[in-house]
Amino acid sequence: MGETGERELMEKALAAHRKRSGKVEIAGKVAIKDEDDLSIYYTPGVAYVAAAIRENAALSYEYTNRANTIAIVSDGTRVLGLGDLGPESEMPILEGKALLFKKFGGVDAIPICVGSKNEDDIVRFVEMLKPSIAAVNIEDIETPKAFSITRRLEESLGLPLFHDDRRGTAIVVRSALINALAVVGKRLGSAKIVINGAGAAGLGIAEILCASKAGNVVVCDTAGAIYKGRRENMNAFKEWIAEATNSRKESGALIDIVKGADVLIGVSKKGAFTKEMISTMARDPVVFALANPDPEIDYHEAKDAGASIVATGSSRQPNQVNNYLAFPGFFRGMLSAHASKVTDEMTLAASDAIATFVKRKQRSAEHIIPRFGDLKEYTSLAVRIATRVAEAAVSAGVANAHVDKNIVRDETKKMLSLYRKKEKGLDKLNKRYE
Amino acid sequence: MGETGERELMEKALAAHRKRSGKVEIAGKVAIKDEDDLSIYYTPGVAYVAAAIRENAALSYEYTNRANTIAIVSDGTRVLGLGDLGPESEMPILEGKALLFKKFGGVDAIPICVGSKNEDDIVRFVEMLKPSIAAVNIEDIETPKAFSITRRLEESLGLPLFHDDRRGTAIVVRSALINALAVVGKRLGSAKIVINGAGAAGLGIAEILCASKAGNVVVCDTAGAIYKGRRENMNAFKEWIAEATNSRKESGALIDIVKGADVLIGVSKKGAFTKEMISTMARDPVVFALANPDPEIDYHEAKDAGASIVATGSSRQPNQVNNYLAFPGFFRGMLSAHASKVTDEMTLAASDAIATFVKRKQRSAEHIIPRFGDLKEYTSLAVRIATRVAEAAVSAGVANAHVDKNIVRDETKKMLSLYRKKEKGLDKLNKRYE
Repeated sequence: MGETGERELMEKALAAHRKRSGKVEIAGKVAIKDEDDLSIYYTPGVAYVAAAIRENAALSYEYTNRANTIAIVSDGTRVLGLGDLGPESEMPILEGKALLFKKFGGVDAIPICVGSKNEDDIVRFVEMLKPSIAAVNIEDIETPKAFSITRRLEESLGLPLFHDDRRGTAIVVRSALINALAVVGKRLGSAKIVINGAGAAGLGIAEILCASKAGNVVVCDTAGAIYKGRRENMNAFKEWIAEATNSRKESGALIDIVKGADVLIGVSKKGAFTKEMISTMARDPVVFALANPDPEIDYHEAKDAGASIVATGSSRQPNQVNNYLAFPGFFRGMLSAHASKVTDEMTLAASDAIATFVKRKQRSAEHIIPRFGDLKEYTSLAVRIATRVAEAAVSAGVANAHVDKNIVRDETKKMLSLYRKKEKGLDKLNKRYE
Repeated sequence: MGETGERELMEKALAAHRKRSGKVEIAGKVAIKDEDDLSIYYTPGVAYVAAAIRENAALSYEYTNRANTIAIVSDGTRVLGLGDLGPESEMPILEGKALLFKKFGGVDAIPICVGSKNEDDIVRFVEMLKPSIAAVNIEDIETPKAFSITRRLEESLGLPLFHDDRRGTAIVVRSALINALAVVGKRLGSAKIVINGAGAAGLGIAEILCASKAGNVVVCDTAGAIYKGRRENMNAFKEWIAEATNSRKESGALIDIVKGADVLIGVSKKGAFTKEMISTMARDPVVFALANPDPEIDYHEAKDAGASIVATGSSRQPNQVNNYLAFPGFFRGMLSAHASKVTDEMTLAASDAIATFVKRKQRSAEHIIPRFGDLKEYTSLAVRIATRVAEAAVSAGVANAHVDKNIVRDETKKMLSLYRKKEKGLDKLNKRYE
């Protein structure tokens, strides 16, 4: 995108956000027409509902919107790829996610930017949200703090928790990788895959590849390859990486590690990859340069250097790898199944659903990940992910006992079709009252 | 209401809440039609909005929904009049309030039931919400904890905070009282007013009556009249009551204090008032028996005992005193004025707006508070309250400097008219997809 294009987008984005002051609002699910409705939905009728929930707290999932409500929680310390911009700056991103959660997943996501960077504060805050929500999405919190927060909450919260920068990115990267390897005729079990970046995304990708029985994964950070026994620049999560990957204990700088590699995945920063690096890779190199807003290496430069397949985070070149492919459908399926936690089965199912959404005949070096001429297809993808995730939750034994595997699919489809129709009506309304 | 009526209402309320699983949801304010919209409202466009807010955090009031967003926070320790039912049980009440906030005030209220009863926890929780909201409504938290929480937050938060059980009740009770005294030809400055109950509502009513120059107010609790120097059953807030009211230092049980009183206001519990008490009051007794769900004394019993005017919390007799008359309009005006805090000027303005909504010609012993055959009138009342509160905020110097007193009224009317139209469309949509 040229400078003119950037300025134009900036002006459009600022004007669009200012016009209606943001992107999401609270709306009524029920109509109040008269005093009778008031006495049913408010006092005195609501007292009976409160009393029923007191007898059985689980009924809050039936009598209130809780079962469909999640919180997106961030402290604004890692706003997009831009760093610590403060909690207020994170809100446009969270509102954008809430918009996509609803539009494509039928999920009610409350965007919350918290006014503290303290780990204990954030953990306690999310714990206190529990009675009002069914699940949590952790977003744009700096690492390794985000890892300790999620680890602590996974133990204490008793609700499913999804760290989108880690899980969401991993799901989509794996989908793109499966298709890329199919195009170049290589196998996950034998390909050498180098990940550059050991933040949330790097850890998440390493995790999902290990769960997928990838045979040869090496993760690099600014100190080079992470291997068992490395001393400098480590933390508990890098120790896990050292343990689970790099069985050959390769050490050294990225430029050395990447030699002979089949796949190079960047979740680091602009300029981290060079043409020289790509030229030393094995035949038909696959390069994912996913840093935002600017990739580790420009799409065309990577191609020039010999890459067979290149993916970036941008919508302006082929193969855009973006979390938004995954999270609305993932949460829809997880909530519909009343899942008690996120499991590998669920993330793998979501990733498979995205990968196979690109049909064999369509699959090519320029098409390894779903892309949409029409947003209807996006909704179809969300439905497919949701049904697969719900089924996986049932199979893994983490779904609510009452969820019937056979009806999850139909229910999810029906629900999303209903939301789609209503959103269409809402869009019209919004337009009329702009 | 007979037992049959109660059972019918219970069944209707439970069925209505279950049918759509609660009452509020998150909705998009903008339409996403294609990938261009995605690039404006989500990545990469949203990065420019985040960067703009980083430069000036106050822009979060323009580029996000923050300026119109409040949190309703409760720990469920005082659910309606029913006591500590747990946070999950509070959610139907909070969702009901959120519904009314939006429908009649155009305010986006996030209902949050927190999973801790600890005072420090709740204070910290609300502080951490700050970057995401413009104001806070504290709801159904037991006293005196609610008082210390609001006092601490009034100092630390830097956002307007409204304790509905205290301020909201006080606003509406004062409106009803003004009209009742007009009907019986008495004056606020000279009438003897006895308040039974020294919880949130009792304190709030005492506060607003003192701010209104009521001449003779005595507050009783279970230990009798509160007076300066009393030792038993006191706390910091009752000390304030002792200081500000009961200048004659009356002491003794309610039954003694109420002798010769012009007004008896109950915010206590069923059975607290007897016919005998009322029979000892001055001529034309005014009795507000506001305990929920059952009043201190039955409406008809109080009438039989000689009360000229009786009000209760119930919609089944004349003169229903309920907070819902005040809070949607109050918050609408406060948010439109970008008020930095709640002041006495604002609560008095809201109370006057409610009182004068009952026209002189309509005013009678059976009509001291607005009542609605048609909910359109309710919206008119909310508009009137909103404009008065916004004007009062400007006069008191707590409104945003950019708010022009002359345009606040038009802006508020326009905004509410827009919301009304959109809500109408939404109601239709909700009905169609039920």
